[in-house]
Amino acid sequence: MKYSLLFGKTNRTAKEFDSINATLLQKAGYIDQVMAGVYTFLPLGLRVLSKIENIVRDEMNKIASEVLMPSLSPRDVWAKTGRLEKMDVMMQTQGANPASLAKNDSNYILNATHEEIVTPLASKFTYSYKQLPLALYQIQTKFRNEPRAKSGLLRCREFRMKDLYSFHKSPEDLKQYYEVVKAAYNQVFKRVGLGKDTFIALASGGDFTDDYSHEFQTKCESGEDLIFHASKAQLHFNREIAPSQAILPEQESEQREKQEVLGEGIIGVEDLAKFLNIDVRKTTKTLFYQADDQVVAVALRGDYEVNELKLKKILKSKKLELATAEAIKNLTGAEVGYAGILNLPDVIKVIFDDSLKGRTNFETGANKTNYHIINVNFGRDLAEPQEFHDIKLAKEGDIYYETGEVYEVYKASEVGNIFPLYTKFSDDFNFHFTKEDGSEGQVFMGCYGIGTSRIMGVVVEKFHDEKGIIWPINISPFHVHLIGLNLDDPVVFKKCEDVHSRLKQEGLEVLFDDRVDVKAGSKFNDAELIGIPNILIISAKTSGEEYEFKTRNDGQSRHLRLDEIIGEIKSDLYS
Amino acid sequence: MKYSLLFGKTNRTAKEFDSINATLLQKAGYIDQVMAGVYTFLPLGLRVLSKIENIVRDEMNKIASEVLMPSLSPRDVWAKTGRLEKMDVMMQTQGANPASLAKNDSNYILNATHEEIVTPLASKFTYSYKQLPLALYQIQTKFRNEPRAKSGLLRCREFRMKDLYSFHKSPEDLKQYYEVVKAAYNQVFKRVGLGKDTFIALASGGDFTDDYSHEFQTKCESGEDLIFHASKAQLHFNREIAPSQAILPEQESEQREKQEVLGEGIIGVEDLAKFLNIDVRKTTKTLFYQADDQVVAVALRGDYEVNELKLKKILKSKKLELATAEAIKNLTGAEVGYAGILNLPDVIKVIFDDSLKGRTNFETGANKTNYHIINVNFGRDLAEPQEFHDIKLAKEGDIYYETGEVYEVYKASEVGNIFPLYTKFSDDFNFHFTKEDGSEGQVFMGCYGIGTSRIMGVVVEKFHDEKGIIWPINISPFHVHLIGLNLDDPVVFKKCEDVHSRLKQEGLEVLFDDRVDVKAGSKFNDAELIGIPNILIISAKTSGEEYEFKTRNDGQSRHLRLDEIIGEIKSDLYS
Repeated sequence: MKYSLLFGKTNRTAKEFDSINATLLQKAGYIDQVMAGVYTFLPLGLRVLSKIENIVRDEMNKIASEVLMPSLSPRDVWAKTGRLEKMDVMMQTQGANPASLAKNDSNYILNATHEEIVTPLASKFTYSYKQLPLALYQIQTKFRNEPRAKSGLLRCREFRMKDLYSFHKSPEDLKQYYEVVKAAYNQVFKRVGLGKDTFIALASGGDFTDDYSHEFQTKCESGEDLIFHASKAQLHFNREIAPSQAILPEQESEQREKQEVLGEGIIGVEDLAKFLNIDVRKTTKTLFYQADDQVVAVALRGDYEVNELKLKKILKSKKLELATAEAIKNLTGAEVGYAGILNLPDVIKVIFDDSLKGRTNFETGANKTNYHIINVNFGRDLAEPQEFHDIKLAKEGDIYYETGEVYEVYKASEVGNIFPLYTKFSDDFNFHFTKEDGSEGQVFMGCYGIGTSRIMGVVVEKFHDEKGIIWPINISPFHVHLIGLNLDDPVVFKKCEDVHSRLKQEGLEVLFDDRVDVKAGSKFNDAELIGIPNILIISAKTSGEEYEFKTRNDGQSRHLRLDEIIGEIKSDLYS
Repeated sequence: MKYSLLFGKTNRTAKEFDSINATLLQKAGYIDQVMAGVYTFLPLGLRVLSKIENIVRDEMNKIASEVLMPSLSPRDVWAKTGRLEKMDVMMQTQGANPASLAKNDSNYILNATHEEIVTPLASKFTYSYKQLPLALYQIQTKFRNEPRAKSGLLRCREFRMKDLYSFHKSPEDLKQYYEVVKAAYNQVFKRVGLGKDTFIALASGGDFTDDYSHEFQTKCESGEDLIFHASKAQLHFNREIAPSQAILPEQESEQREKQEVLGEGIIGVEDLAKFLNIDVRKTTKTLFYQADDQVVAVALRGDYEVNELKLKKILKSKKLELATAEAIKNLTGAEVGYAGILNLPDVIKVIFDDSLKGRTNFETGANKTNYHIINVNFGRDLAEPQEFHDIKLAKEGDIYYETGEVYEVYKASEVGNIFPLYTKFSDDFNFHFTKEDGSEGQVFMGCYGIGTSRIMGVVVEKFHDEKGIIWPINISPFHVHLIGLNLDDPVVFKKCEDVHSRLKQEGLEVLFDDRVDVKAGSKFNDAELIGIPNILIISAKTSGEEYEFKTRNDGQSRHLRLDEIIGEIKSDLYS
């Protein structure tokens, strides 16, 4: 393709956006922002997106059947599953003006996900065990009412996604297929160039199950997730569920005298530690939660935050929220900020985090407004808790229980997730099947997503330098960027066209910068911004059999014969 | 592909829908209705849709660049062109529940078409004549607030469409490209199997221009458009703009005495003709229109309806609507229903349709409540009109002026349209360019649509029989339907698998009905319903080198060698 004919040129002086991918993809002419979180894919960008989607399709076709579900759906299917009111990214549609409303004033849901469409669909065609397992996927546009659409292709109101749904006759069969999808996903990420740095992290299974879900997380400096890696255990955890053991600092061996301290208006562990002149790890946070119909107290070391997902699981509660200031005052007799684990009414259940274990001479709130108590010790001032739990949000430096190793913590960007749904949706839609023995069975479901446009954004976040993008070959818009210089010389132009033809004959995709009125420096800069991994330069200086060949990745420039260049690109492409 | 593994089986006893394509596509397992006008494409249906879209893409890539614009857009671009309030199929989106609205309560337009997106986009990258002409297209999902979504894939709320937009530096350049698109469209319709019966019909250019637009209309019994074909002139007209000359029936040579007749409550030409015992073609319809700020009377032969598009053009009026009953009474002195062309106040301009020309002894309203006048004659009772116009809706039997031929009238379904927009949108978005001489030029635009999912529906409407669908080979979900019978016999099964492999090796796509527990009759019925054009049957009776080969189109069954069958299919496929 001749660059002069390409729609969507580079604009190296365009404004900077809030993320690297938004900036580089727009400067290089891949995408164009229509509004926050909504983009047009220009020809270059559409080539990349199509390549990603074709890789996804290729791997999915090995394990599932492709369908195309609509974006519009009736409200009643969402009411059935309880998500009509609950799902806070859901959008609806209706006529945009009085003329349109006069013709049809109904409103419809604009699908953010498709469980509510695919479950009745699968149920319509599935009667018996013979039709199971069943796996359906689509590559389609999704809509989400993001309040802060940002970070380019990473968080959009409208985006492209592959979603796969599977249906099984037993949880075992679901688990088996789940592993099949894991393998297929690994293939996808390998092929799009993210394989080396993409890991399966355990994450929350959400409301539907106590099991983990699995996120495919790509290590990336600008990633929005924090991953805790226990390398001996070969496990990666999303921070939201990472089990964590605190490291216990050295403790004083002697117990000091317990002391009540006036600390008027001193609220918050950092201020308190400074005021008391103690290590923040000596302080104790005591919080109260309304868990279903009981109020519980939770206590943890001052330098930790509560992880409500963990707490909810331990309490086996359906609803969990912080207790009101009024409820706390009623229970402790003190204003919020002075609650502690000493002198609490016996009726209150206390959940102790294991970061409290082994401390001597620690601080706690006095349950008396403005007062704190220091030099508290388990066994002396209050009974040693019978049980410690892990209810804290993991942080850097924490230990993974099972192996005792300190976590490696890294930032990552989610590129896919897989999720066991079990019978949540099949129950809602009364989707059952006839078993081998004639009895009725429950259908078990899983769902599996890959954001295809998001992958494009993540790849740019990960593979770029100060000059521009560096595409992995398999999703690069073209395989070779052919830069022609001195093109007003017909001999050079002819040479470029010959090389262009030859590369195309070899099945390679070429972007030929054929502009006559643009300087060499500009052409090099554009090539580096656009980021095609192989750059071939032909100018008046090119003579003999050898051509200047530059690899974008390492900036290395060599002189090679055309067949050597073709061989190198092909070996990269098919590796 | 093994039929046993295909998701979306035939359901021959499924309910009948309101159109042939909806019924057959659902019975055969191509699509599934999610709600009125909204469908899921099942694996078979998606194969057909993808083939259609790939053909479209292939032809479009020769003349334009592919992009992918979003479905969401901000309201302000629609306000700019005046379509925010005007476009009565437009939908908007917003949060679907309080939780979603609390996060973001903005609302966005859900695009029904993309002029408002593509014009600012093109303008962003186009500065001078050097970048023109420019042509951008996409294949994408469109949303329209159809009040009566019906006829399966023909009229949907959500549908697939290819839309192309072109930008030019002169109207001449636009016209030239317009012809290029016509040729490309003809190629598309030829390749999808509709070429022989698809014609370019002239249609209204809408509000933007006095020129015609061009519709690609496929002759089809169930088509919703009526096309008037003047074969000598080689022109097809959509009824909405077909020029029409009425045939004048034989007239009495003697003028009779004019007579006022009491016809109390007789309104409507059919009742009136019966009451007066005259040919309806002797009656006259007189109507009053508010055209911008004047009221005009229009008169035409009783058996015709007014074509308001024609009338608007003749009057050069921007707004045209029927005058109110009150206005008519004020003008004529009579209740509505008794207006006529005799004794009208001189100030009223009357437009006479040419169907009135040459009549003797005709009827007209008396402009007096309950009265009609018969045996009226031009030249005697009122002046012969200086001018006659064509303001009527054409009907079967009418004549095309230029050639004097009687139209051939046929029903057709629109499969594409092309439309000169001129400067409507470039003006709204202030899209100008720098000309060769440095001055500023206006950009001229055209737009060009093909409904890809609609084509699928039209093809089924056109190519089916009482047994099912008959696909043109290029868009058939598979090239060959291989029916295996007596598959419990491992020798037969092996033979089927060998033939299946061989056909695949030859690059043919095969649907192999491998079901063991289904009877021969059912398999034949399913194959005819599904409609793959070539059917190959292997059973215990198959022996030697020859196989039973059936062509779906003519039902013909022959015994041929495998290489003959392959040759025949390939010659069909690549012809």
